[in-house]
Amino acid sequence: MLASNFTARRSLCVAARRNASSASAALFNREPAAPRIRTTSLPGPEAQAAVSQLDRVFDTRSLNMLVDYDQCCGNYLADVDGNVFLDVFSQIASIPIGYNNPALARTASSPSMVSALINRPALGNFPSRDWAEILSTGLLRAAPQGLDQVFTAMAGSDANETAYKAAFMWRRAQERGSADFTDAELSSVMLNQAPGSPNYSILSFSSGFHGRLFGSLSTTRSKAIHKLDIPAFDWPVAPFPKLRYPLEAHQAENEAEEHRCLRETEKIIDQFRNPVAAVVIEPIQSEGGDNHASPAFFRGLRELTKRKGVLMIVDEVQTGVGATGKLWAHEHWGLTSPPDMVTFSKKAQAAGFYYGDASLRPNKPYRQFNTWMGDPARALIFRTILEEIERLRLVDNTSSVGGYLYSRLDSLSRQFPDEIQNLRGKDRGTFIAWDSPRRDAIIKTAKSKGVNMGGSGERTIRLRPMLIFQKHHADILLDTLEQIFKSA
Amino acid sequence: MLASNFTARRSLCVAARRNASSASAALFNREPAAPRIRTTSLPGPEAQAAVSQLDRVFDTRSLNMLVDYDQCCGNYLADVDGNVFLDVFSQIASIPIGYNNPALARTASSPSMVSALINRPALGNFPSRDWAEILSTGLLRAAPQGLDQVFTAMAGSDANETAYKAAFMWRRAQERGSADFTDAELSSVMLNQAPGSPNYSILSFSSGFHGRLFGSLSTTRSKAIHKLDIPAFDWPVAPFPKLRYPLEAHQAENEAEEHRCLRETEKIIDQFRNPVAAVVIEPIQSEGGDNHASPAFFRGLRELTKRKGVLMIVDEVQTGVGATGKLWAHEHWGLTSPPDMVTFSKKAQAAGFYYGDASLRPNKPYRQFNTWMGDPARALIFRTILEEIERLRLVDNTSSVGGYLYSRLDSLSRQFPDEIQNLRGKDRGTFIAWDSPRRDAIIKTAKSKGVNMGGSGERTIRLRPMLIFQKHHADILLDTLEQIFKSA
Repeated sequence: MLASNFTARRSLCVAARRNASSASAALFNREPAAPRIRTTSLPGPEAQAAVSQLDRVFDTRSLNMLVDYDQCCGNYLADVDGNVFLDVFSQIASIPIGYNNPALARTASSPSMVSALINRPALGNFPSRDWAEILSTGLLRAAPQGLDQVFTAMAGSDANETAYKAAFMWRRAQERGSADFTDAELSSVMLNQAPGSPNYSILSFSSGFHGRLFGSLSTTRSKAIHKLDIPAFDWPVAPFPKLRYPLEAHQAENEAEEHRCLRETEKIIDQFRNPVAAVVIEPIQSEGGDNHASPAFFRGLRELTKRKGVLMIVDEVQTGVGATGKLWAHEHWGLTSPPDMVTFSKKAQAAGFYYGDASLRPNKPYRQFNTWMGDPARALIFRTILEEIERLRLVDNTSSVGGYLYSRLDSLSRQFPDEIQNLRGKDRGTFIAWDSPRRDAIIKTAKSKGVNMGGSGERTIRLRPMLIFQKHHADILLDTLEQIFKSA
Repeated sequence: MLASNFTARRSLCVAARRNASSASAALFNREPAAPRIRTTSLPGPEAQAAVSQLDRVFDTRSLNMLVDYDQCCGNYLADVDGNVFLDVFSQIASIPIGYNNPALARTASSPSMVSALINRPALGNFPSRDWAEILSTGLLRAAPQGLDQVFTAMAGSDANETAYKAAFMWRRAQERGSADFTDAELSSVMLNQAPGSPNYSILSFSSGFHGRLFGSLSTTRSKAIHKLDIPAFDWPVAPFPKLRYPLEAHQAENEAEEHRCLRETEKIIDQFRNPVAAVVIEPIQSEGGDNHASPAFFRGLRELTKRKGVLMIVDEVQTGVGATGKLWAHEHWGLTSPPDMVTFSKKAQAAGFYYGDASLRPNKPYRQFNTWMGDPARALIFRTILEEIERLRLVDNTSSVGGYLYSRLDSLSRQFPDEIQNLRGKDRGTFIAWDSPRRDAIIKTAKSKGVNMGGSGERTIRLRPMLIFQKHHADILLDTLEQIFKSA
């Protein structure tokens, strides 16, 4: 009843077809048929007035659009001037199953949600009676193979940082065995000095992005602007393979490059002045420009980290939850032994890390702890997201729509080789990107034609549609790109 | 209508009296009259079974109680065995206006909340049309005097860390002026080396607690267990005054101690190897054992930081939002110039930092940025919390109830000087604490009698009741303590 009351108010966007059995059925049957641009320029007059108001109290220099969320529906984003955009950026890859999704609306207006919002627990001390059930029917149902425990967090940065903390505690436990902390550790740690605060490190890869707080930012290597003026730990960076495209044409050379990067990584693990406790890596480097490596590279990294006694943390903050045609992108690798930890956020709308090994629970309580330890309200949302992914077979959807989208982009790239360079993301669902020498202009023009896209790296256009992105949406995107390229 | 439907379901806990005009009127008229312990031991049989279930997937070693939130009401916390406790710990000081608060329930089931939950924006890029209004009628209505801008975050740790980032960027801007980044900065920063990653520092105080991520943990100096095995920045720690109680009897000595600490702080700012960009301090050191200093000490620190060109960040994560008898604890100091930043979380149920000076907006966009930048759902909750604080005059309530509680504890401490040592928090609302040589046993016994209390530091009992804690609740707490002391 709560949900129907809610849905009635939002006439724009109502229930998905229950019998959607093929990927081509509409998943939102009141979605607009196409984008609609009403103002002669962007931002429109309403937005301009409202932004200057907002800027008095909130930095608006990174603002892209002032959104009327009540008017958004499915894959479509509406601004305050009544312009409606096909959204293939999805709040920086973080909207999973569409704006004003009716199933999420039901969950969001349920008594359980109200309770979660108004009785926010300190989860480590006072979890709710149904927390085990919420975890096992939600977050843990999504757990990658081989990992059956979860530590909940708030966003991608602290998901990674709590994983790093687990790695450091694990590493010291290997050395310390069952011995207790020494007096030297107990006193030096209060002064931030070794041995209590050891000079261990996390190895990350060039162009990687893992967040913006102090530990995660020390592993982020995407762009200087993300890091400038902020103190950082003396942690090592290894080269991420720079593959040449098309892959088929550069197989031997790309293999050699990946071997070189693995050898370099091994050398750093062996020699870096601050011992490496863990390696963190994205399956596809997203903020850094959608850089891919082959499954063989990642299998090699798993083998190397095992051999060196270094943990492997797979950062699936952006790649996780279905967009690559698998629930987790690292499922594409065919690992024989799972990563030690997998972090998540964004499309999960909740955050944290999965792990499999009880040795990653520290030896004492209150070492991996904080007041809220995540948010049960967001865990409830993720459970519904997973249910919808299963009910509507959305991972299959990203796989098939992604295949279609990639092949048409591939054709376009042959037609407009200057516009679409280094197309990548084959067999990776809708997680597709290419380089564009005039990237920012293309994104701006696409927006004026009603398609909201995003960039990454120095000159990459990355597609990050939602899991409900279908063939007819892909056609709108493709036709818009073709128009832009033709009129260039 | 949504709210009444919700409330009907939860018969335990219904609307507050609208005409509550004095602090003695019940703020929740269906609150239990007293705690009720039904099981012969704690945890009870239901809890024991459920915890072992939960432990399979979630570390339960820090678990205090498995809670039935549907049965909680106002100041009362209910466990899964039907035991009902007067809660003076409040989810580590983070529940502001009572469990199942009806005003929060209305907000939580409103269409705006549903939209905030299911259409989570990347706030820096795509804020909602009403974000300016949500900020100005909510978060910014609570802004401390002299600060009129806000950066939103997720929890206390990242609230502090984003404030530290602002301080570092500000510091470099002072040195750099209008010059752009140098080539040396742009290249060194990608290797985490100076000058791009400068060796600046944040100065914090002994026993302070500022969070558990890498930057915030580097400023946390509460306990070794919070920090062990985690790499930390080489940042300085200054002595926090160790006052002797009762204050009246040790005035000269305490003044000398505070002067010593200020002199030592000045020396560190002048001499520490890594230049100090900001000082971070709690108005009352909470996790570290409820350590107080006088308003004169904090005024001295403000004067010192101004004189040295160092920013002053006041961490009000635990002290903020009303419990000290002021909305912000630093209002007790009589500063003539405001802190540069004030961080908040916990009882705000939202997080971030306030600031006043446009120079704390970095020179370029995307330097202080992340995908979500907080959570509009939680900002809506905070707005209602503030409305209820104003409507029910809850800051006055904590001031008057706190005064009553303190004076009766003061009497008890004379009667039982071994049990209540160094009582502190006079004129600080309900933010009261004392030292107890058998702290853990007292807390355990109180729990068995239906009062849920918390500890901090090595041997401190800290009271952290909600803002709706009243005289009759205080009497239950006091009577319970007296019983325990008498039967010792």
